Amino acid sequence: MGEFELIRHFFAAAPCAQGGEAVALGIGDDCALLSLAPGEQLAISTDTLVAGVHFPAVCDPFLLGQRSLAVAASDLAAMGATPIGFTLALTLPEVRADWLQAYAHGLNQMAQACQLSLIGGDTTRGPLSLTMTVFGRVPSGLALTRSGARAGDLLCVGGELGNAAGALPLVLGQQQAGPAVADPLLAHYWSPQPQFALGQALRGKATSALDISDGLLADCGHIAKASQVSVQVQLSRLPISPALQTLFGHQGAQQAALTGGDDYVLAFTLPEEELAPLLEASWPIHVVGRVGAGAGVSLVDDQGKDITPTTRGYQHFREQP
Amino acid sequence: MGEFELIRHFFAAAPCAQGGEAVALGIGDDCALLSLAPGEQLAISTDTLVAGVHFPAVCDPFLLGQRSLAVAASDLAAMGATPIGFTLALTLPEVRADWLQAYAHGLNQMAQACQLSLIGGDTTRGPLSLTMTVFGRVPSGLALTRSGARAGDLLCVGGELGNAAGALPLVLGQQQAGPAVADPLLAHYWSPQPQFALGQALRGKATSALDISDGLLADCGHIAKASQVSVQVQLSRLPISPALQTLFGHQGAQQAALTGGDDYVLAFTLPEEELAPLLEASWPIHVVGRVGAGAGVSLVDDQGKDITPTTRGYQHFREQP
Repeated sequence: MGEFELIRHFFAAAPCAQGGEAVALGIGDDCALLSLAPGEQLAISTDTLVAGVHFPAVCDPFLLGQRSLAVAASDLAAMGATPIGFTLALTLPEVRADWLQAYAHGLNQMAQACQLSLIGGDTTRGPLSLTMTVFGRVPSGLALTRSGARAGDLLCVGGELGNAAGALPLVLGQQQAGPAVADPLLAHYWSPQPQFALGQALRGKATSALDISDGLLADCGHIAKASQVSVQVQLSRLPISPALQTLFGHQGAQQAALTGGDDYVLAFTLPEEELAPLLEASWPIHVVGRVGAGAGVSLVDDQGKDITPTTRGYQHFREQP
Repeated sequence: MGEFELIRHFFAAAPCAQGGEAVALGIGDDCALLSLAPGEQLAISTDTLVAGVHFPAVCDPFLLGQRSLAVAASDLAAMGATPIGFTLALTLPEVRADWLQAYAHGLNQMAQACQLSLIGGDTTRGPLSLTMTVFGRVPSGLALTRSGARAGDLLCVGGELGNAAGALPLVLGQQQAGPAVADPLLAHYWSPQPQFALGQALRGKATSALDISDGLLADCGHIAKASQVSVQVQLSRLPISPALQTLFGHQGAQQAALTGGDDYVLAFTLPEEELAPLLEASWPIHVVGRVGAGAGVSLVDDQGKDITPTTRGYQHFREQP
């Protein structure tokens, strides 16, 4: 049995591996085939994770299976897309059935949680790396892009920031913590939850959106550049978890929330009048700043005064006007 | 400038990088967006090439750019799909502008030849490898799959076989040849031409199809298994180039045509009555065998006698009944 067939074998146990109605032909031919309903567009994103770069070279394959799919799928959430499926290009130094079984189990669990079907892939011999390409559908013209933010919009995020950055020293064994602190941070790192439902709820409401992968400031820079606006982040409003605060202290937690990557929480801009109905519907939305005219990203205090540090680490996020 | 932006920069020079009408949103957001016309399906395939496994670790990046895209795009041709675009996940040990420029130039040239637009991707640090995901469109229900071959159909191929296998010792520096022999073989290896037009012409005519990547016998095994038929390959009918015959001799060339991979020529099954009109329309079609009842792949002489060698190299292509 080939490696990919081995994965398919482990994966086929899951009901969702059969594919939703959009999957006309799944694994096993030269191509997979997808069908869209009239008035829908297909959203596509590709992400590569390399061992020793994006995850520890030695790690639990079950957790890696979960994380590798969630990281890619989060881009679909950021577009407001409804998940369809994914392809997996898996490069492995050796074929080990126990590793593949555990990896497929983790992948499978995340695929079920995300309602994503494995529709194809490739398995090759080489240094361990994973490339996922994910597919979703979205009503034509309603995809959330980075380019529609307008001066006056609120800057919002869909959850706590910095937890994955807090987990990193624990993952790398550089720091230790009791379960009350370690567990929620590690869960966030290994099993991020793509915010599909929130992304879909923001269709036609948010003026721009993305998922935070490079850190809030850097990602706000992407919105500012694509939308040709400035973004002000209000330091005191950053939603920070008790676990992160305990592990890093107040200032360290703020730093992690501003510049830590891998959060996979949505950041988006919203006209002020759209906020109240979304909060009433209990969406997990935190207002963390505002969009202005001009260019670049700045950090402000509660009086709106610019407190952006000019040291390295912040400075390169400031766009040239 | 990030690496991917560097590629985009080099790539954006090409008119086709702007995308056809199916590309609603290209590079630069969380996802690309594709639109299909009513009655169309999307065909998707993923391929990974790893340095030192699928191509020499040290090779001309321009040629690699051509080959990496053509190999993936050939799967679209095999489904009878019309090309739309592709994503590129590029893992590089270091950022070298000269390498990237040459790679993007080769990629670009093949993308223009194939009418494929770069719609997204990811660039990561790590051991050199490339994952392409390619997208095409096909009228619903008309995609060519591996599963429709019927007893009595002709087995056909779309061009000469074994040329890439002939090129391999030249690529690896294990053998030398003059330009009259080396040039056509190397061209076939580094710059395969996906048979899009032939694939599209076979819609509604061929009962099964694939592109030859594992070698004719192995790939016929895929058709036999998916279609639940047997396939007989007639040894004397294999189309072999003069260059391959010169380099490998008659028997070596036949062996390369039967088991050499990387040809990226279409193999397909055709009801006998469909052949004449296609030949009259000048499609490059060679009849190389026939489909029968039963299971497995066999090699036959001109009298239909089974001459399948039972030595390793052939034997594992025979399916169990």
